[in-house]
Amino acid sequence: MSKNAVILLSGGLDSATCLAIAKSRGFTLYCLTIQYGQRHEIELESARLIANSMEAKEHKIIEVDLSAFGGSALTDDIPVPKDSLSEEIPVTYVPARNTVMLSLALAYAETRQANDIYVGVNAVDYSGYPDCRPEFINAFQNLARLATKSGVSGEEIVIHAPLIQMTKPEIIRTGLQLGVDYGLTHSCYDPVDGRPCEHCDSCLIRMKAFAEIGMVDPALQR
Amino acid sequence: MSKNAVILLSGGLDSATCLAIAKSRGFTLYCLTIQYGQRHEIELESARLIANSMEAKEHKIIEVDLSAFGGSALTDDIPVPKDSLSEEIPVTYVPARNTVMLSLALAYAETRQANDIYVGVNAVDYSGYPDCRPEFINAFQNLARLATKSGVSGEEIVIHAPLIQMTKPEIIRTGLQLGVDYGLTHSCYDPVDGRPCEHCDSCLIRMKAFAEIGMVDPALQR
Repeated sequence: MSKNAVILLSGGLDSATCLAIAKSRGFTLYCLTIQYGQRHEIELESARLIANSMEAKEHKIIEVDLSAFGGSALTDDIPVPKDSLSEEIPVTYVPARNTVMLSLALAYAETRQANDIYVGVNAVDYSGYPDCRPEFINAFQNLARLATKSGVSGEEIVIHAPLIQMTKPEIIRTGLQLGVDYGLTHSCYDPVDGRPCEHCDSCLIRMKAFAEIGMVDPALQR
Repeated sequence: MSKNAVILLSGGLDSATCLAIAKSRGFTLYCLTIQYGQRHEIELESARLIANSMEAKEHKIIEVDLSAFGGSALTDDIPVPKDSLSEEIPVTYVPARNTVMLSLALAYAETRQANDIYVGVNAVDYSGYPDCRPEFINAFQNLARLATKSGVSGEEIVIHAPLIQMTKPEIIRTGLQLGVDYGLTHSCYDPVDGRPCEHCDSCLIRMKAFAEIGMVDPALQR
């Protein structure tokens, strides 16, 4: 019998690749999408299509309205920065986002007897987000072992972040080998009529990565 | 200028006491109530009244529907156990509840420049919940320092669990000294017409504690 894994699935390029990696390792796939009050729902539809394409056993969407707290261009009316890749923590930073998402994944994992959680965080292109670093993932794994019934009864809980040290072109190559259809994914912070804006941080990083491996981003060809 | 603190406020006896302790230490109070798909809303009204009575600067209520995952008598249709205080992890256990609540408190704290978070967890009457132990709180504090802008820039983030080693009568005595009106609080897992059932774990623990200090639970006199 295959083991169960929970995969955090945003609908973007990284989490789609992460899902494909979990699938290639033989896990039964439970996908979790967190709708944290972002301004557009295209990502949700992408997440549904990707979960379906990877034959996930279940796909749950949980709403958490972090916009009630304010403080991010992704959930507030602060303008999304265009055509500049910043080195500092950007205004698109959502407070404690990965902590919140992993804690919900942990709750879901407990109810599905899953001791493995996959998250597509990346420390290379992370644009200064503190909760995308390996030490954060390690600290969460330590917490998860202390926080749960299965951890307390001695089972090993593992937070997998297989993309954490990969460059974007490496991530895309890995996904292509595993059959990811990147045309289904959506990464743009500020889509125009359902299409990527091609100017936000997220679009710029993605277009550059596809260019480096000699491809045009399939999301631009929809 | 006083420092800001976020206080997790359920509307129950413990979190009301915790809020009074934060107030006595001079913090500006930002209360956070998580509505995690529980079956009754009396707790929310209690939380509002308590936040008001303690002159909180702000009270946010955030909804997270953990019942979508299933697995607890507090959010599902599993019967709440009556008239027995179990030593094992009870069916009223909500998966990863304190991890989810603290992660949302951390998100709120980041947006309010609060480096102090108060949570009313208790290891004495905790009925076998793994996420009520001191080692869990320490692990979360470690995580919080790695997860946030302020932690990364060297500010100290502290998770306060002032009740963690106190007995229920000690908690009540502390709260009475600090002016908590326990008639406003609500702890019952399974209220009948808005009144405590007097038979669930939570009611039994509370009634016993008030009896020990020679009082009748004020929540029974409403």
